[in-house]
Amino acid sequence: MAKRMRTEGAEGVDWDRCYARRTRRMTSSIIREILKITQQPEIISFGGGMPASEFFLAREVEEACHYVLANEAQKALQYGLTEGYPPLKAYVVDRMRRYGIVAEEDDILITNGSQQALDLVGRIFVDSGDVVLTEAPTYLGALQAWNVYGPRYVTVPLDDDGMIVDQLEGVLEQEQAKFIYVLPNFHNPAGVTLSLERRKKLVEIAAHFGVCIVEDDPYGELRFEGEDLPPLVTLDRGNVLYLSTFSKTLSPGMRLGWITAPKEVIGRLVQAKQGADLHTSTFVQMVANDVCQRGILRPHVLKLRQVYKERRDTMLASMEKYFPPGVSWTRPQGGLFLWVTLPEHVDTTEFLKVAVEEKVAFVPGPAFYPDGRGRNCMRLSFSDVTPEVIEEGIRRLGQALVREFG
Amino acid sequence: MAKRMRTEGAEGVDWDRCYARRTRRMTSSIIREILKITQQPEIISFGGGMPASEFFLAREVEEACHYVLANEAQKALQYGLTEGYPPLKAYVVDRMRRYGIVAEEDDILITNGSQQALDLVGRIFVDSGDVVLTEAPTYLGALQAWNVYGPRYVTVPLDDDGMIVDQLEGVLEQEQAKFIYVLPNFHNPAGVTLSLERRKKLVEIAAHFGVCIVEDDPYGELRFEGEDLPPLVTLDRGNVLYLSTFSKTLSPGMRLGWITAPKEVIGRLVQAKQGADLHTSTFVQMVANDVCQRGILRPHVLKLRQVYKERRDTMLASMEKYFPPGVSWTRPQGGLFLWVTLPEHVDTTEFLKVAVEEKVAFVPGPAFYPDGRGRNCMRLSFSDVTPEVIEEGIRRLGQALVREFG
Repeated sequence: MAKRMRTEGAEGVDWDRCYARRTRRMTSSIIREILKITQQPEIISFGGGMPASEFFLAREVEEACHYVLANEAQKALQYGLTEGYPPLKAYVVDRMRRYGIVAEEDDILITNGSQQALDLVGRIFVDSGDVVLTEAPTYLGALQAWNVYGPRYVTVPLDDDGMIVDQLEGVLEQEQAKFIYVLPNFHNPAGVTLSLERRKKLVEIAAHFGVCIVEDDPYGELRFEGEDLPPLVTLDRGNVLYLSTFSKTLSPGMRLGWITAPKEVIGRLVQAKQGADLHTSTFVQMVANDVCQRGILRPHVLKLRQVYKERRDTMLASMEKYFPPGVSWTRPQGGLFLWVTLPEHVDTTEFLKVAVEEKVAFVPGPAFYPDGRGRNCMRLSFSDVTPEVIEEGIRRLGQALVREFG
Repeated sequence: MAKRMRTEGAEGVDWDRCYARRTRRMTSSIIREILKITQQPEIISFGGGMPASEFFLAREVEEACHYVLANEAQKALQYGLTEGYPPLKAYVVDRMRRYGIVAEEDDILITNGSQQALDLVGRIFVDSGDVVLTEAPTYLGALQAWNVYGPRYVTVPLDDDGMIVDQLEGVLEQEQAKFIYVLPNFHNPAGVTLSLERRKKLVEIAAHFGVCIVEDDPYGELRFEGEDLPPLVTLDRGNVLYLSTFSKTLSPGMRLGWITAPKEVIGRLVQAKQGADLHTSTFVQMVANDVCQRGILRPHVLKLRQVYKERRDTMLASMEKYFPPGVSWTRPQGGLFLWVTLPEHVDTTEFLKVAVEEKVAFVPGPAFYPDGRGRNCMRLSFSDVTPEVIEEGIRRLGQALVREFG
């Protein structure tokens, strides 16, 4: 019942006093800031995680728009169900079945890209001070989604086979985590893939401790080589929330993702989404569904795999050629990213300035750690740059490395 | 550092123990629940707040899709700026200028409908226990958006001239509110409009107490009669956050709204949206922008005003004809809704069951109060029902009223 002080001659609102505590925890994504800097055309950017826009299915999407608006405009332009457009959910059920994931339409919520699924997961699970267990490094968009809910992050490191699951049990004995966040396929930013043996052990340990797993799989379909490994959700259906997206296969600009979880959890996520934005664009869902139902997406994904494989190969070969000794990197079997480790004394946030002078950019490692580690690491994306430009960009980056640390 | 208890023979996660405290405050929107019940074709529903889908600009949207995808597909299907698509923001600037609102592109954030703007406002301002001041009744979607942030609601009642601003000063002397939420035009659910005198007094009191105003104006363009009144934001630009939407003019299924605020606040809202879903669909924004830039929306709105005026007139005349004495209602000058007050002893939640037996539906009053008042009130929407059906629906509702309370 405190009476607000009336300031003499006050003009307007003291915004800083108005903000919620969580607002102080919000930061702009360093990637989106870097993107702004590097939009000058002469800079070669390995910073974004953008799909190759020259392969977008423009004509097919246009045909889908035509079909949807000619036949079902009154539905497509009207309010829809929070849960998502049922035929698109049916497609998602079908698509997931190819990877052994058994789900019904009612186990799915359509979201505005995976980013919204991450936000909704944080919203329903995370109280301020709760422990969230992530890999280190981890996806920075997840940290950005969850920071507003005030978690304390506890991390388990990665190696070339993904999360070092051997360290998980010890951590869970000490820390009561709300969930374990994992990117098992072609990790962002690390590019590594969780081995089958570790997958099995991970779900076993999580079940033993009664902790659920949030499995983030935006890149799973983009495997260039090696065998598909079973998603965690197939190993323990009742204990895993599985997130995926159309952003890396169809279009990120449409903003379409989904989450599969036990019905009980989906019910809560639906309530959370209702308050957040009622539902995802009916029109976009129906257009995407039309593209998918016509069987266009699958061959498109096969093509994208070739495109990204060639770009990865070029990046790996160029790094061999141009990077000085003492630099190491991961060799992803799919996805969009790889992870470079520089000598201990290098600070990649500082080095980025040198690189930008050489007209090349990347994302410095600390963005991917909740605690600012990863000083001497950087993420490179090979997806939205042609092979010729990749070689030139890596040459420039190698030159900057030699100039600074050679 | 509490060690999680290992339950013998535990199977999976105890979800109830996992949820955040805020999750207990989430509820499903009664409107969306009623919509599900009333989707049987024989029920006449005045429950939804849906635009008339037979007037959607299907062909024009299709032409826009064609244009955008033929010319700018690589941009339309790619990631975009969190702030929104600049040409669409320029259109919004232009549109608002017609109502005297002076804003620059940088003062605008494009959102997934107004619902997301409401969520983001709650996200940046509301800590658990903070006071949010609303009208009573108020828009239930706002309550649903904010409940997760744990506010304490304090209300000021409405009459035919909108919020009874005379009561505001006394309330603000007692309560330190984070913001004042107002729907000045064709209020949802009440259908009333805030008078000019009260608008002036409201912004004056808010400035005096250093409290900002959240002005929600989804229906302002849908005025059938009378003169436009100045938006609150034109009376005190630095102290008002102004929300509007394309949902009631172009399409709710696209999910496009916006918020205008001081740059300082827009910066925070952008950070909040980045974590929530990165950005609103680039494709949808570009399609909407194309429709708008071709000057199609303005004449369309003029047509919608005629359509809704006729429906409102039919509803008012039918209520005169069929409703028993002791029932009163508001006479909106625009928008989609009116508000009916039944005799004190009537419980509209119970009465809805009777109405559904008579094959007609509405939304009971308590949904629009944070504290469950409004027992004897109901909201009727006249927007998505043709005049003939409105008359029949009101006849049924009158019959149910006579049957129960006559």
